[in-house]
Amino acid sequence: MTVSPFDHPLLSGLLGDEETARHFSVEAEIAAMLAFEHALAQAEAENGIIASDAADAITSALSSFRPDTALLRAGVAKDGVMVPELVRQIRAAIGERHGASAHFGATSQDVIDTALMLRLKSVVEHLGLLLTENILRLTTLEDRFGSRGLTGMTRMQPAIPIRVSDRVNAWRAPLQRHRERLVEQAVRLLVVQFGGAAGTLEKLGDKGPTVRAALAAKLGLGDAPQWQSQRDALADFAGWLSLVTGSLGKFGQDIALMALSVVDIKLSGGGGSSAMPHKQNPVKAEALVALARFNATQVSGMHQALVHEQERSGAAWTLEWLLLPQMVVATAASLRLAAELAGQIESLGR
Amino acid sequence: MTVSPFDHPLLSGLLGDEETARHFSVEAEIAAMLAFEHALAQAEAENGIIASDAADAITSALSSFRPDTALLRAGVAKDGVMVPELVRQIRAAIGERHGASAHFGATSQDVIDTALMLRLKSVVEHLGLLLTENILRLTTLEDRFGSRGLTGMTRMQPAIPIRVSDRVNAWRAPLQRHRERLVEQAVRLLVVQFGGAAGTLEKLGDKGPTVRAALAAKLGLGDAPQWQSQRDALADFAGWLSLVTGSLGKFGQDIALMALSVVDIKLSGGGGSSAMPHKQNPVKAEALVALARFNATQVSGMHQALVHEQERSGAAWTLEWLLLPQMVVATAASLRLAAELAGQIESLGR
Amino acid sequence: MTVSPFDHPLLSGLLGDEETARHFSVEAEIAAMLAFEHALAQAEAENGIIASDAADAITSALSSFRPDTALLRAGVAKDGVMVPELVRQIRAAIGERHGASAHFGATSQDVIDTALMLRLKSVVEHLGLLLTENILRLTTLEDRFGSRGLTGMTRMQPAIPIRVSDRVNAWRAPLQRHRERLVEQAVRLLVVQFGGAAGTLEKLGDKGPTVRAALAAKLGLGDAPQWQSQRDALADFAGWLSLVTGSLGKFGQDIALMALSVVDIKLSGGGGSSAMPHKQNPVKAEALVALARFNATQVSGMHQALVHEQERSGAAWTLEWLLLPQMVVATAASLRLAAELAGQIESLGR
Amino acid sequence: MTVSPFDHPLLSGLLGDEETARHFSVEAEIAAMLAFEHALAQAEAENGIIASDAADAITSALSSFRPDTALLRAGVAKDGVMVPELVRQIRAAIGERHGASAHFGATSQDVIDTALMLRLKSVVEHLGLLLTENILRLTTLEDRFGSRGLTGMTRMQPAIPIRVSDRVNAWRAPLQRHRERLVEQAVRLLVVQFGGAAGTLEKLGDKGPTVRAALAAKLGLGDAPQWQSQRDALADFAGWLSLVTGSLGKFGQDIALMALSVVDIKLSGGGGSSAMPHKQNPVKAEALVALARFNATQVSGMHQALVHEQERSGAAWTLEWLLLPQMVVATAASLRLAAELAGQIESLGR
Repeated sequence: MTVSPFDHPLLSGLLGDEETARHFSVEAEIAAMLAFEHALAQAEAENGIIASDAADAITSALSSFRPDTALLRAGVAKDGVMVPELVRQIRAAIGERHGASAHFGATSQDVIDTALMLRLKSVVEHLGLLLTENILRLTTLEDRFGSRGLTGMTRMQPAIPIRVSDRVNAWRAPLQRHRERLVEQAVRLLVVQFGGAAGTLEKLGDKGPTVRAALAAKLGLGDAPQWQSQRDALADFAGWLSLVTGSLGKFGQDIALMALSVVDIKLSGGGGSSAMPHKQNPVKAEALVALARFNATQVSGMHQALVHEQERSGAAWTLEWLLLPQMVVATAASLRLAAELAGQIESLGR
Repeated sequence: MTVSPFDHPLLSGLLGDEETARHFSVEAEIAAMLAFEHALAQAEAENGIIASDAADAITSALSSFRPDTALLRAGVAKDGVMVPELVRQIRAAIGERHGASAHFGATSQDVIDTALMLRLKSVVEHLGLLLTENILRLTTLEDRFGSRGLTGMTRMQPAIPIRVSDRVNAWRAPLQRHRERLVEQAVRLLVVQFGGAAGTLEKLGDKGPTVRAALAAKLGLGDAPQWQSQRDALADFAGWLSLVTGSLGKFGQDIALMALSVVDIKLSGGGGSSAMPHKQNPVKAEALVALARFNATQVSGMHQALVHEQERSGAAWTLEWLLLPQMVVATAASLRLAAELAGQIESLGR
Repeated sequence: MTVSPFDHPLLSGLLGDEETARHFSVEAEIAAMLAFEHALAQAEAENGIIASDAADAITSALSSFRPDTALLRAGVAKDGVMVPELVRQIRAAIGERHGASAHFGATSQDVIDTALMLRLKSVVEHLGLLLTENILRLTTLEDRFGSRGLTGMTRMQPAIPIRVSDRVNAWRAPLQRHRERLVEQAVRLLVVQFGGAAGTLEKLGDKGPTVRAALAAKLGLGDAPQWQSQRDALADFAGWLSLVTGSLGKFGQDIALMALSVVDIKLSGGGGSSAMPHKQNPVKAEALVALARFNATQVSGMHQALVHEQERSGAAWTLEWLLLPQMVVATAASLRLAAELAGQIESLGR
Repeated sequence: MTVSPFDHPLLSGLLGDEETARHFSVEAEIAAMLAFEHALAQAEAENGIIASDAADAITSALSSFRPDTALLRAGVAKDGVMVPELVRQIRAAIGERHGASAHFGATSQDVIDTALMLRLKSVVEHLGLLLTENILRLTTLEDRFGSRGLTGMTRMQPAIPIRVSDRVNAWRAPLQRHRERLVEQAVRLLVVQFGGAAGTLEKLGDKGPTVRAALAAKLGLGDAPQWQSQRDALADFAGWLSLVTGSLGKFGQDIALMALSVVDIKLSGGGGSSAMPHKQNPVKAEALVALARFNATQVSGMHQALVHEQERSGAAWTLEWLLLPQMVVATAASLRLAAELAGQIESLGR
């Protein structure tokens, strides 16, 4: 099934991004969940919450664990999340003696949110690299064509002469600020979620914070108190994603408008038409605009999901799953397309 | 890759709908495109636009045509649409003598938009049936429990006693109006798109409207002048989808609030928790709220896509592809979940 | 205070519309509320719910009633709606003997929703006229310039020659469909709301529906069962408003793009610049795009408000007030601007 | 005219905020514009761009300048912005000899965007104070009731016992992060905009950056290269506003849900009903939810406005004006309401 273009075997070649999309595959998600359960067992054993031979049994079972995905699917349909069934399968794999020590003191949300953060950590690194690549590509354009002239256009009308570097800078400067923002956000975003049934780690006595810190360290995430009903870091990250695609959408829109004139830009590799094979459509530029408007649409839903009632809202949480992964992939695709489009520019200005 | 929960092997068991999702598979899309090309060849041959042995050659080639999807993927990345490459493959399959008669006078948008309409026709029928099923389920609830009492709740506070039938009616009456709306909309929505390169059917001389009417008839769609840059029927349909999920979201929210009290409702089959196996979470009710807020988010983007510049906007058109299929599946899933949830209600009121 | 450009003494000259904005003044709102209370008293007296001399006393008091707006403001801050305080003032004006007969059996929502419908009835008529005016203006353009040539533009690139009439038709046809839609919607939209405390008209015994029908007839609205928690007609109307501005946004975007070229269009009366007095900015065309994207943004919130919990949601209802009036005025402004812009077109095509 | 509840004489008592709304009055806007023109003249005279007696004449004329607002309104309708007409009036007030020295080298956007920043500087300070007040109020609640018990609620169902402090912390921690974010954002946001006709300060020769720095210093804003087509700081700020209202919406939603039960919370000062005077509606809690969903709706449009084509987009810029001021006032109102609501809590937990 390929309802979303980001999953679509054909459309994802234009609109998708394999490197980020694979972080949202079931395989990657379950792998991150198993990493959580493994690190939790280690952290709990080190702190005397579970026995060390229980931790060994968990490690051993997880190393060869293969989930029954049909049962997981049925579990989601019943429970709304895959974790209760996944934990049941893990415990069965561990065996009766130590099974109950797995997932001890944790709840579904701990697993799902932390598994998301593990993957977002890689995503953030990847997006940061793509952002830098775009900045470099635009700098190359400025180096090559910056001193040439362009007609500055204001309110869709010719204004006064500017230089190519003026316009290139308007494309690049926001990307530099987005890099700053990402550094600031990452500290708040990439943290462990560990709270237990209702956020109090009630089963861990006074060792809750210590175990949580150890868990975070083992997973390479920041330590922070549970944030299960506080979704601001995710909504803020969604905003960052949409800022990036918005800035690149402006770049795409400008390129498409420049392509209306033969003198301002020369592009290689435009797209063809089934009716007019001679055309050179600015396909990537248009896709940048579409992805910008897509993310600008989605960001609204991520902010709606901030109204996350009580200690855990199934409704608001599920809404995030419907929105955030696609925003991530849209952003990676946009960064990839923008870099490719910059590379297709053979000439700017005159 | 499974970036969208609607495509996700596990989450789609809760949030997806197989019956509608399959209309958005690549296979279904290409089948609809081939149906377009076949019907077009027939209509053009009947009107003397192409030779009848050309139409026979096209029919014969299409009947055994298997696309090279790797090349189609590369085509999308280059052209923004799969049609130029698909037509190239089709023409190669037909052979040199009659290849140029395939897709004659048509453009990518004709194929893509009409292929969408062919599938939306089935979708509309399916959604209509699901809507009726929900109306019947709610009527059954009214028949069983309607005369019992409930505390009417206004502004999140107990108001005065009402009957169960009062609340059930507030769930059902909007669905009845949605059925009316669907009938009104379908006439404007389910029409052929056939305009050629820029909407003028310039290659068909004075036979354009006649061929178009024949094409529509063969495909079981309504006939209408080209609407390639007029996207109001699609945005209106997106609004309808979101009206449906919004009404069902109200139903879900009400059920979740009722489930807070043990006396107002008795539900079977709630979801379990990995930390608290005793809980009976109103998973389907929460999913209805999430899907309502999802579609309410997406509808904005479909309206942004109305600003479809000139004779064809790659940006605005692509934006629709990113939004509409998921809205359709969200709506079907919501209707399925609401019917199931109604079926889980063992008791209402007191 | 002028936080919204629609209320702004200067910006409303461009972005606002006086004719519709006045329906959302406090004066117009209170006048509609008093009309409700008056018609209700008449309908209830005719059906023996209140005494006829009570109705006379209500009529008499309402004819000279002047609200204390400072107290109404305080009432809103406390109660969330102005009606409890307004009813208190009205009853005081009537006097102790018959005061309790005013607003008998009604609740705040009956007054507010029906008062909205009374004003939307005028709004719908006005928007219908503006729509027709736009259709006529575009027909005039077609009559004058339709046979001239234009370069059809697809995917931001020159495609093939078309005629001016082809493009004008793409602007006009959606407006004609919007007229059809408005007729269909108005029947469902422009109905009375009368339900009492929780929708059951419990104080009117078996005469509830009869009184409601009489009330509707006196107010010139359709009769319908209470719809206090069923907001689909309002969300659907919001969608219609955004369909209209979206279609006009496409017109504005096309005009702004045509204005890039001196040969395709000649416009009179463009806007000047403080830095470049020679420029002729396509101000109205740009405003059409801005208003289209504004309404496309707002429509999402109106759909979020469909999740209207229980018998009355203060949160969802208040959200409508923050969105719908501005959508109405944006639509009227857009229709006005589009008609003016059409009138500024001195030449189209070549 | 009072189309927006934020401007509405009655509704603004609940949903508005006078302190921030007055920054968006015409008077405040024009005052900020005159401050820009005054500081610009000073900075340009100091750097030898204009004569010092010209600067004196400008200072003198501005000190007693009163705009003709009827002409400004007509100017907006024609030019899309008030600045060309305002500058004409200012120059007339200065007189022929030095009139042309006013606004020298600047353009409408410099005036409008910098005048916005001057007012946002005050807004940011005000919102920061309100945020701190809310944090303190919640800390007081924790001090008073933190050790009491509550039933933790997950997925709308009772989970396990928690303490009041657990829930209060989930309300407060996001606000503390919002304070951090505001500090980070303010550096990027509160900067001067000065670019001239198309961003190049072409009339200032090599003194452009020096004059701009002096202008910024005189206005108490940060210095930064022109950002006229780079709207990321504004969209990011809009996101921040919506993060704040979203977190407070969660607080409001939680309070409204707690108010369903008499044991969890005791609130003073709830709102009354016209039909049921005994009710104590959680009006402020509901308003917090409505304002959260309002801002979550608007933020989408601010991100759409990032696609700001070329050197200045009238369409994208105008869209910001329709959205941002209302988001600011919604946020201030939400912070005010949340602080008041916290003050109404007489008891939490048991």
